[in-house]
Parts: sequence; C-alpha cells; structure tokens
Amino acid sequence: MNFPKRSVTCGELRIENVGLEVVLNGWVATVRDMGGLIFIDLRDRYGITQLVVHPEMQPDLAERVKELKQEYVVWAKGKVRERENPNPKIPTGLIEVHLEDFGIINRSELPPFEISDRVDISEETRLRYRYLDLRRQSVQRRFLIRNKIYQIIHQYFQELDFVEIETSYLTKSTPEGARDFLVPSRIHKGKFYALPQSPQLYKQILMISGFDRYVQIVKCFRDEDLRSDRQPEFTQIDLEMSFVDKDDVIEVTEGLLARLWKEVLGIDIKTPFARLSYDEAIRRFGSDKPDLRYDLEIVTLTDLFKGSNFKIFEDTIAIGGVIAGINAKGCANYSRKQIDEISEIAKKFKGKGIVWIKRQNDQIVSPLAKFIPERILEKVKEFVKLEDGDLLILVSDYKEICYNVLGVIREEIALRNGFLQNVENEFSFVWIVDFPLLEYSEEEKRFVARHHPFTAAMDEDLELINSEPEKVRAKAYDIVVNGNELGGGSIRNYTIEQQKRMFQLLNLSESEVEEKFGFLLEALRYGAPPHGGIAIGLDRLVMLLTGTNNIRDVIAFPKTTSGLSLMDNCPSEVTDEQLKELGIKIEKNE
Amino acid sequence: MNFPKRSVTCGELRIENVGLEVVLNGWVATVRDMGGLIFIDLRDRYGITQLVVHPEMQPDLAERVKELKQEYVVWAKGKVRERENPNPKIPTGLIEVHLEDFGIINRSELPPFEISDRVDISEETRLRYRYLDLRRQSVQRRFLIRNKIYQIIHQYFQELDFVEIETSYLTKSTPEGARDFLVPSRIHKGKFYALPQSPQLYKQILMISGFDRYVQIVKCFRDEDLRSDRQPEFTQIDLEMSFVDKDDVIEVTEGLLARLWKEVLGIDIKTPFARLSYDEAIRRFGSDKPDLRYDLEIVTLTDLFKGSNFKIFEDTIAIGGVIAGINAKGCANYSRKQIDEISEIAKKFKGKGIVWIKRQNDQIVSPLAKFIPERILEKVKEFVKLEDGDLLILVSDYKEICYNVLGVIREEIALRNGFLQNVENEFSFVWIVDFPLLEYSEEEKRFVARHHPFTAAMDEDLELINSEPEKVRAKAYDIVVNGNELGGGSIRNYTIEQQKRMFQLLNLSESEVEEKFGFLLEALRYGAPPHGGIAIGLDRLVMLLTGTNNIRDVIAFPKTTSGLSLMDNCPSEVTDEQLKELGIKIEKNE
Repeated sequence: MNFPKRSVTCGELRIENVGLEVVLNGWVATVRDMGGLIFIDLRDRYGITQLVVHPEMQPDLAERVKELKQEYVVWAKGKVRERENPNPKIPTGLIEVHLEDFGIINRSELPPFEISDRVDISEETRLRYRYLDLRRQSVQRRFLIRNKIYQIIHQYFQELDFVEIETSYLTKSTPEGARDFLVPSRIHKGKFYALPQSPQLYKQILMISGFDRYVQIVKCFRDEDLRSDRQPEFTQIDLEMSFVDKDDVIEVTEGLLARLWKEVLGIDIKTPFARLSYDEAIRRFGSDKPDLRYDLEIVTLTDLFKGSNFKIFEDTIAIGGVIAGINAKGCANYSRKQIDEISEIAKKFKGKGIVWIKRQNDQIVSPLAKFIPERILEKVKEFVKLEDGDLLILVSDYKEICYNVLGVIREEIALRNGFLQNVENEFSFVWIVDFPLLEYSEEEKRFVARHHPFTAAMDEDLELINSEPEKVRAKAYDIVVNGNELGGGSIRNYTIEQQKRMFQLLNLSESEVEEKFGFLLEALRYGAPPHGGIAIGLDRLVMLLTGTNNIRDVIAFPKTTSGLSLMDNCPSEVTDEQLKELGIKIEKNE
Repeated sequence: MNFPKRSVTCGELRIENVGLEVVLNGWVATVRDMGGLIFIDLRDRYGITQLVVHPEMQPDLAERVKELKQEYVVWAKGKVRERENPNPKIPTGLIEVHLEDFGIINRSELPPFEISDRVDISEETRLRYRYLDLRRQSVQRRFLIRNKIYQIIHQYFQELDFVEIETSYLTKSTPEGARDFLVPSRIHKGKFYALPQSPQLYKQILMISGFDRYVQIVKCFRDEDLRSDRQPEFTQIDLEMSFVDKDDVIEVTEGLLARLWKEVLGIDIKTPFARLSYDEAIRRFGSDKPDLRYDLEIVTLTDLFKGSNFKIFEDTIAIGGVIAGINAKGCANYSRKQIDEISEIAKKFKGKGIVWIKRQNDQIVSPLAKFIPERILEKVKEFVKLEDGDLLILVSDYKEICYNVLGVIREEIALRNGFLQNVENEFSFVWIVDFPLLEYSEEEKRFVARHHPFTAAMDEDLELINSEPEKVRAKAYDIVVNGNELGGGSIRNYTIEQQKRMFQLLNLSESEVEEKFGFLLEALRYGAPPHGGIAIGLDRLVMLLTGTNNIRDVIAFPKTTSGLSLMDNCPSEVTDEQLKELGIKIEKNE
C-alpha cells in the first residue's frame, strides 16, 4: 500500500477526539480558499470532515493544496481541533482537522455533474454515470437504508425459525400470466431454461419436503413491457409456512412491517391491520388497493334513485347496474371546467361521464333537479350527508365500471384538493381479503386464476365451485399500503384433488397440466402439508421507507423503461461463435 | 382451517412437559403394532414424537389407527407422559404422547423409497423425487446448517459495517475465460443480456461510488461443461473493500471463517492462517491448493544429483529442469505393481514415469544404484531423511511437469496410505499468495490474466512489467482449505493507467476494451479509491461444514452434470410464439 491508511473515517470524529492525531482517506468534496484559511471538505460514506490549512503558517502546504480538485482521492494527516464556527447540522460539525500533510491517491477529471444533492440532473445522465450518481448523499442514503432493511428481515425471520433456502434461477418455463425471460441451453440445444417469475412452485415443494417455514430474499424476472414503476428484475421477500391458515401468514407479515417501520422510521404502526373484503374495497373505494389515508368514500345510491323516472338511472337499474357517488367535501365551488375534466376521466375509464349535485347557500343545485323529484334529492342529500359547500359526484353504469370510475375520481379529487400533502408522512396499512378465485378472460374465453392456479378456494364457497365458479372466493390476501400493493399471498391447494379441480376450472388440458405442472401434482401425492405464504415486494418496501416514488432510486443498477442499462450499455450484441454454440440464430427482419 | 392446529412441534416436548395436553401436526414416520401397544412416530422438521395407543383401553382408536400409513399427514391430540422405555438418542426420547384423538390431514401414496437415512438410493432417483429426498433427516440437516451459515454471514458483515447491495442479474456479456449464459432481449431483438459469472465489475463500481464496504450472497452462472463438483449456477459470498491492502481483506475473511467454524462445528481455528507463496506451494506440495493436513513434502534434489553421470538426470539438468522427490514414509514395502501404478499416474500428467530409492534392512535399494555413485545416494538419503522402511519417489522433468506430477503422487500416496482417514475431522487453512499476474496461453498465443484482468500487479515487480511480464506477481490471494480452493481475491487496478496497461499486456485491442470494459475505464477517470476484495464459494463452504463431497447435497434443487433438473424436467422446449417474440430461431442440425 503506497499511501497512509486511514485511522478514522470521515464520519466519526467528535469533540471528545480533540487533540488526536488522525489519518483520513476520502474524496475532496469542496476546497474553499478564504485567504487567511483554506477549508477542504473530505467525504466518504460515513460523513464529511473539514480539513484546515493556515497559509501563513503553512505556506508550502497551502501551495500544494492548490492542486486539489473535486473528487480527487486523498490521504490527509493532522490533529483534531475544536471548530471556531461549529456546524451543528452534521455530526462532525464541532471539530476540524488541522492539516499537517496529505497526498493524492487518485485524480479525477471534472465530473459531468457536481456530486451534490443540490443539483438537478436528468435521469438519463444519472443512469449513464451511475457510479457518480451513487456518490451523492441522498442517493447513497437509500442504499444504506436498503441494507438496514435486509438486516432487519434476516434477523426477524431467524428469530421465527424460518429457514433461508436458495431456489434455482435456471428453472422451467411455465408461463401463466407474464412472459418469461428465456435462457438457451448449450448442452441441450433447442431447449431453454426460464428465469423465475417467482419461486412459487419451488417454495411449495419445500413445504412438501417438510421445511415448515421458508424465507428467501430473491430476484424475480418478468419480461413485460415496462411501466415507469416496473423493472425486468425485481426483488421479493418470499416466504411460505406449513400447517397454517391465513391469519398466521398475516401475523408474520404484520410483525415484519411493524418492526421495519419502527426500526427504520421510528414509527409505531398499529397491528393487527384493518381487513377489507375485496367486495367492500371495491364498493367503498373503487379499488382493490385503496389509499385509506383519506376518506372520500363511495356511497351506493341505487335504491334511493329507484322510481326517480330519470331515464339514464332507470336504464342502469334495469340492466342491474349501479348508481353511486362520492361526496367531495367542500368542492361545490368546482368550476364548469373542473367538472368537465373529471367527467373526462370517467370516460377514459369506460364510463359515460358524471352528473353532480351540489349544496350551495343551502340550495340543492344540480342538472338533475329538473328530472328528479325533490324528495329523492332530499333523501340523497341526507344519506350522503351533503353539507353546505359539498359536491356529490355521481356515476351510473355497470357495476364494475361504476366503482372503477369512482375509484379513479376519488384519487383525482384527493390529488386536486391536496389531501395527500397533509398525510405524506402517514401510513395506512390494510389487508384486502376474500378475492374472487377466478376471473373471466374475454381474450382467452375461459376463466383464469386471479392470483395464480395454486391458490385454494374458501371452504365455505366450495359448494359453488361447479355451479357458479365466478362467485367462489379465494384464500388470498394482499397487503396494501397507501394505495400500493406491497405484497400478496394465499393459502395453497395441498391435496391433489383440489389442485386438479383448479386446473379443470381453468380449462387446462391434461397434457398441458402434465407438461407444466406434472412435478407439482406428483409431489402432492406423497403427503403434502397444508401451507400458504406471501411475497412482499422489496423494492416497493424500500421506496415506502425511503420516501421515493421512483423504483430506479432503490435499485443500484436499474434498467430504463425500455430495459436498457445505460451505464454498461446492455443488452448488447454477442459473437456469432456464442450463438452457434447455443444453436440459435437471430431472426432477420422481413 | 379444517384440522386442529398444532400447539407444539414434534421436536420440543421434554420431561418437564409431562401432563400437558398437546396437539401435534406431522408426518407418520412409522407405525409399530406391538399387540398390547401401538406406537406411532410422528415427524416434522423439528424432530420426532412418539404417540401411543392402548388397544385394550382404546379399541376404537386402535381400529382407526390401522388406516395410517407412512407419510400420511395427521393431527394428533393427547397428553404428554413419561416413557417407560426412554430413548436417550433423541431429545424427545424421555416422553411420549398418549393419543386421545387424531385425524388424517392428507394421504400419501407409497413413496418410491423409504424416507430414512438407512436406505441407499441412486442419485438419479433422489433428484427425480427431490421433494421426498429433502424429507430425509441427513439431507434436511445440511440445509438447516446452510441456513445457519447464511445467518452468521449476515450478522458478521453487519457488525463490520459492510453494506449489502444487490447487483443485476441481467448484465453485459463480457466473456473473458468462461462461457456466459445468454438471455435474449425481446425489446431489443438481436441483442442479449448475460447472467453474471460474478458481479466483479459491479462491485468495483460500487467502490468507485464510495460504498466503502460491500457484501452480497449472490448467484453466479457459468456455462461450462460440468464436472461432478460444478453446477451451472452457484453461490458466492462476494465482498469488496476500499482503502485496503491484502492484509485487510485476509483479516476479514479469516474472521468470518473462524466464526463459522466456531458456531457451526464448535471448532476453534487458529488465525492468522499460514501463507505460502505460489512458488513455495508448487515447490513443496506440487499444487497451488495443497492439502496441508499431512506432510509428504516434495524435496528438490537437482543440485545433489549434479555430476551423477546418470543420463536422464544430466539431460534434465541440461535443459534447466528439476529433479525432485517425495519421501513416502514407511512405503518401502510397496510392490512392483504399486510402484508401476504410481509411475502410470506420472505419465498421465505428462511425466515420463518415476524412479525410486528405498531403504530396507538398512540397505539402499534402487534401480539407480548401478548408475549413480554411492556417495551421491548417501547424500540424498541424508538430505531427505530416508529412514529404514521409507521409499523415495523421484521425478525428473521440466519444472512445471515435475512438481505437478509429484503433487498428484503426493495426494495418491496420502490416499493409499490412509493419511486422510486420520485427519478427516481436521481442517487446514492456508493462503496462497504472490501468484503470477499472467500466464501464457498457447491456444491464444498471448498472455491471459491468471485471476482476471482487474487484478493489480505487485508494486515491487512493476519494473519487470515490460521486460519480463511473466515474472510479475499479482496482489492476489486464494484461501485453500484441505486442498480445496474455497475462495480467491485480489487488490484491483484503481488507476486508469494501471488498468490500461493490463489490457495492453493481454493484447486486447482498444476497440475490444472499449466495447467490453469501456464503462469501467470511464468510471476510473473520476477518482476511484484503492480497493480489493474476495469471493468465497458458499456451496464449497457448506460442503466443508456439513462434511460432504457432493455439491448436489448442499443445493436444494441442483442440476445433473449435464445441466438437467430431473424433478421438473428442465431445460424444456418452449413455444414458437415465445421464440418469435424474442426474434430468435433454433438452428437445425445439418
């Protein structure tokens, strides 16, 4: 080693170290020549230490210091002193190091942007020069928190006797839902491995093997067209437990989240969390991932409007549709333009637009007033507690569309009225339970699994499974935080009969089932225990705990929305030799 | 849940629980009908609990118990009692549970093999029915130890302020050495990601980003023709540190290994470990991963044989070769056949065979005796301390061949003479240091990096770098345990000049360097800190700590040597639709 090694980091000196001779290694953050004094801020992961040179007393050193530029890597030797002008904002702000000697360990060209949180840099530049972006304190901080989160997770599951087991990354392609990333096999030409979308089947196999409690922090892969909050590879906390029901998995998950919020943010979150059935979540919030930090609940008014003789409503009622609304408190002063914009949102989500009733100066004002009897409007007013200054936004449509549209309008009003600003540091946790087991795919003309085909039906709905399968609910649960789905899981089919019945409901052929899931069915023959689990999105968790909405902020080397890594420029071309060995050819564009 | 949930596991009841009413959930391991009593062993991950039925007093229960078969999953309710015939071999052996009621939770067909450590099963069958194989106690135990190892690693690096960071799995293909697994990009047709052979460049980038200390337990991938101890995907403990030299990385690694051996095996291993230079390891043990649990050192005798007039030796000396030998203690009674077998080994490793000198009944016996003056043989005898009953095996050849052949013979003699049986539970740790930086590839007609191109040269050898590059040693270090390379690392090039010079030594063209490693060179422009690290083979570590020589014993879902997963039958064919989306075609065999 051809430089003096640090005796302390740049983050650890305190007032009680005054008088100590130290050696520091770090990056030059700033050099400020104040004439009588020169200050150098030396930075590393642990903090910043101020070095001082007195040009009058140290003319040679002062001359040499002129060579230093931002991001130079240096060693510095000196004595710790109390600062004359302390900086209470940083932990090392009470001291400085009186520089006695230093050396340049490595030089730096002028970086393409200043290494500082004060500058605004395009995301493209940040990703291109990720190594410099990651030097910025605000960016680095998120990865230090992410590290803390890993450690809390490891510790928590160890205490609960979970076994950490690594499953494979080169697995079988069983696309059911999302698209697989494929890996051509060289030894078995023409065949492929798939990168796992989740270790679902393997963790179930581990339960059948008797491991009882499994956990893994694991990368998963989905070759989807990326949205801004998605990445082709993402991390989940994957767990599975035997001899359990829904409440056990929920309890373990709540314990983890409570500990994370406490240890990372110092926030006590109350457990058990509220639970909402899927139906109730849809009816009250128009979403299966409702943000419960604010009210703005949806109110169903179909019955009240019966006999209104208003054609649009009567038609909706005739087809079994729904009339429902949101009382936008204090929004009676919305302009025509604002109301039109909300109406446009409704149309964007397949609705026909909105109607409204407002109460202003104690008068009911509404385009409906000339069609609908006053006694009905009065009843509605009472029912939704329409107070002076309130605006009731109504949607009348097929049930799914009506609630979905109102769910979107609910978020829009919260946004417009700044409801989210008031609750920015609040967290609302809710379990959504009792999901439908199946949903009908118009595209495939068959039922598909709403979660995945391994989810068990609720015992009390089993009698409906042949007659009205769409009404069967699943032993599934999603954890929702502030309107984000943080994770989801279920109790699984553990008898071969259950699992086969599910495949039949999905109309999968026997040969298809055998080819894709044969090994699971076979494993179920030999005494599988009842089991269930959950997968929690780790990237999303870190986003919540570091307060960012950008998933690329919490991944060290993320891809762009088109799947590119701008730093190392991948994916990239490979040699013909490589392709030949794999027995594949690139299809030329026609 | 349609069965009574366990109040205790099958592993936790003790004598102090006598009298307790309990519910157990588990697998039926055995049912033994002794006439007067029926014993059922109920098994889960935590242990085995004996259930007892008294047919005379419980005729109905005894009748129902007849339905139970091996591997049935049951719940059982009863009261804890002291056993009349305790089994001191298992922790629950002092108690039993007087069965009061039970139910079958799931049935099992007759497994293809008994779930027991007493049966011998072909590896193919074990891998085919991996879910059943993993139920066996000896197999499960290894994964419980593997879990413990993870937890110790997490804890250790947390204490040392390392930051756990996940690097990407979809990375750039930069094959330099082993073959990459490729992942076709659907969005960028004709381009490919590669699965990482190691996160080498990314961890160096993290140092340049200032994370100071990085650790990750990470999967790595190599598409090599598999040997029996290799897997296409394997796990390593990957770490990197800034502002360090070799000693720092070695100290951190030794601390980890000492803690693992202590906490897993209860063994105190002595640190610091011995260090051997590469040259010395070759000269004394004929290997850069010597097993030091036994002596059998190689002795170089070239000088002693000078002037022997024995043509073979004289020729060797003339070409600058080496004459060296091993004193096989107590092997003077080796038969002609045994000696011939050892000579064959020498030939298999490019040697010309062996000659020997033995001391029997205080006589020197050797085919050399008629060629070589007695005074020389006497000197040799003294030098190698040839005692009565010893056999000196000699090899004369080019230096590399001579030591390599003797290294193999050394292992063979240790094996034949049972030296390893005596030291089976011993562990010998040694660092091999001062490796050559480069080695000449006859195939490519150029120097290649012995470790990888990012390894720094030793400062004291820098002056040789242009004149005699083959003599330059690297700041590289391998940790070797009982003859296995457990891990390896180095101090890296951290200035752009160092790194460019290395690429020049390797005769890589500027465009090739730019295409593959451009981002690293660019990152080095902006103030990279001195840094170094190591990667430790986790699978190998678990093998050592669980006492197995089979890597498939420590991986939950391993591949065969031809890269197949026998349980789920992958790799497998994919649909034309999938290939079309990826823009690739399978090359037909001509």
